[in-house]
Amino acid sequence: MLKIAVLGAGVMATALTFPAVENGNDVRLIGTHLDDEIIDSIQATREHPVLELKVDERVKAYHFADAAEAVEGADVIMSGVNSFGVDWAGEQLAKLAKPGQTILCVTKGMQADEDGTLHILPDVLKKHMGDLANEVHWAAIVGPSIAGELAVHRNTCVVFCGEEQKVLDRLAAAYRTDYYHVWTSTDFIGHEVGACMKNIFAFGGGFAAGMLEKAGQTDARYVMYDYTAALFGEGARELKQMVSFMGGDAEVATGLGGVGDMFVTTMGGRNVRAGTYVGAGVPFSEIRNVKMKGITLEGVAAIGVVGEAIGKMTERGVIAETDFPLVRALYEIVAHNAPLDLPWEKFFGGER
Amino acid sequence: MLKIAVLGAGVMATALTFPAVENGNDVRLIGTHLDDEIIDSIQATREHPVLELKVDERVKAYHFADAAEAVEGADVIMSGVNSFGVDWAGEQLAKLAKPGQTILCVTKGMQADEDGTLHILPDVLKKHMGDLANEVHWAAIVGPSIAGELAVHRNTCVVFCGEEQKVLDRLAAAYRTDYYHVWTSTDFIGHEVGACMKNIFAFGGGFAAGMLEKAGQTDARYVMYDYTAALFGEGARELKQMVSFMGGDAEVATGLGGVGDMFVTTMGGRNVRAGTYVGAGVPFSEIRNVKMKGITLEGVAAIGVVGEAIGKMTERGVIAETDFPLVRALYEIVAHNAPLDLPWEKFFGGER
Repeated sequence: MLKIAVLGAGVMATALTFPAVENGNDVRLIGTHLDDEIIDSIQATREHPVLELKVDERVKAYHFADAAEAVEGADVIMSGVNSFGVDWAGEQLAKLAKPGQTILCVTKGMQADEDGTLHILPDVLKKHMGDLANEVHWAAIVGPSIAGELAVHRNTCVVFCGEEQKVLDRLAAAYRTDYYHVWTSTDFIGHEVGACMKNIFAFGGGFAAGMLEKAGQTDARYVMYDYTAALFGEGARELKQMVSFMGGDAEVATGLGGVGDMFVTTMGGRNVRAGTYVGAGVPFSEIRNVKMKGITLEGVAAIGVVGEAIGKMTERGVIAETDFPLVRALYEIVAHNAPLDLPWEKFFGGER
Repeated sequence: MLKIAVLGAGVMATALTFPAVENGNDVRLIGTHLDDEIIDSIQATREHPVLELKVDERVKAYHFADAAEAVEGADVIMSGVNSFGVDWAGEQLAKLAKPGQTILCVTKGMQADEDGTLHILPDVLKKHMGDLANEVHWAAIVGPSIAGELAVHRNTCVVFCGEEQKVLDRLAAAYRTDYYHVWTSTDFIGHEVGACMKNIFAFGGGFAAGMLEKAGQTDARYVMYDYTAALFGEGARELKQMVSFMGGDAEVATGLGGVGDMFVTTMGGRNVRAGTYVGAGVPFSEIRNVKMKGITLEGVAAIGVVGEAIGKMTERGVIAETDFPLVRALYEIVAHNAPLDLPWEKFFGGER
């Protein structure tokens, strides 16, 4: 039995309380300063208003004001805020965490330095924590997992990745159930990079639907799976290349943390919806400012970060101009309002 | 300009006449003895009754009785029959082909010897052709391509693979259009194995829909993408392993001929439909003999061939018992009527 404090009451962090508490762990769910309504609702009726499901009775819900109390004596602090809150989360962990605890991250993305050098998000958290970063253990959860599906106990397969096998074994044992299947890997960077990259490519998963919509062919006998499949293949290739470039094991690409996760992310969600607008011909600025105003788009944000970084690293001669043609094309769309016009001939190492 | 004779008037062979004839090649479409109605229809009205589209006016359609005339002077003979007709196709090619011609295969699958040794289908064709097999050139088309989508000019990306780069360059130039994007590879065996394996895993793409149906949850807020994504990930891993085992380059797995093609095949079709029945709890014998009686299921056939071969090669000590757990599970379903009960703990190298 572990004491697990969860920072952030979003859908994924909350979904993960189900296997954790069912296994007999002591689980405390702490809302951020943005989650007050969610915590109010759980405290009053157990209902999570975004998941639209009741949270297990055994999970204790806390407002952020009571975070210190909730974290008291925890073996594990899960960082469940989204990628936009990662610096904030690092600042809080610096105050809340204690030596010997394990920090378990579920946030996906990367951050870049001025020169385009990319960092996985656990490293961003560490940056805020000074020496304490070396006195705690680090792990993360990746793999194809839709929060609501996990919450209703659909079979879900994930990878717990981190730096120390012993820590991963302990966490996996705490979370494994008959519907939540957990593998472990010490390829921390490879899996974190894969998780960021699959979010990038999911955006392209919406293009075909938008193009069909615009052409009035949504119900056509022959739609555009060939198109999406080609993007999926090039996405898998670029994901693998980025995993290797960042120092991970290319094997990540053909597993749960690579194409498995890319598959589930391509099946739907906000990034796919944004991609559908692109396919229908809407300039990205209009999607961001009008069509999907105020809606968090983590995949699009990752395109911004990684696309800009790839440009800078190309200038520095670290990355070849012919590499990552799909990421570059997606970046032109989201950063420069480029129309959708894919450079097919550059994909798959160049048509030949 | 090439003279291209197409043996078999099925949907894929016919779809490929569009880019070929639009590029100015001389294209002759030859029905097999089973395609008489299709050829009659094309000759009378240009309509292909299965594709439900008109075939380009410039494509000449021939009954099998006139095959010799149609093949006269051809640079390329495309073998477009399905995997059940591959031995028949080899016998016909033995009579029809001439030294110097190129045989271009679109059929997907493998065949096995008594001891479980697997062969790609071009090798099966060769077996029937004696010395002539060494006097012609060999190539094949793989990658995510739904026949009808290609026929209506949707963007489609494929790989022409074969033994000689010069031959592939010539074929690619003959077929490339602004919607049909062609790459080439001399990893013939790797791509042929990938094409067979993706058909195997597509069957599993139907399970989740069937399970939801059985549970009356088809319209549930949270469906089962996690489940299918996990199968997709394990499928990609086993596809890669089989490509390597057969002597191909593992890179095939993360490209058009691997996960790209697996993606498109998982999106629908007869094998997915058969998998949906499995998910709903129908024993496979009932699917084969009642629900889908008489319907060609190439993916299921490939499960039979490869699953049995893996069993024999395991007995011989050529393949480890822990390898290919998903193929083995699918084989138990189709060959021994096993109920759907996936061995999650064996996937991804074994849960740990």
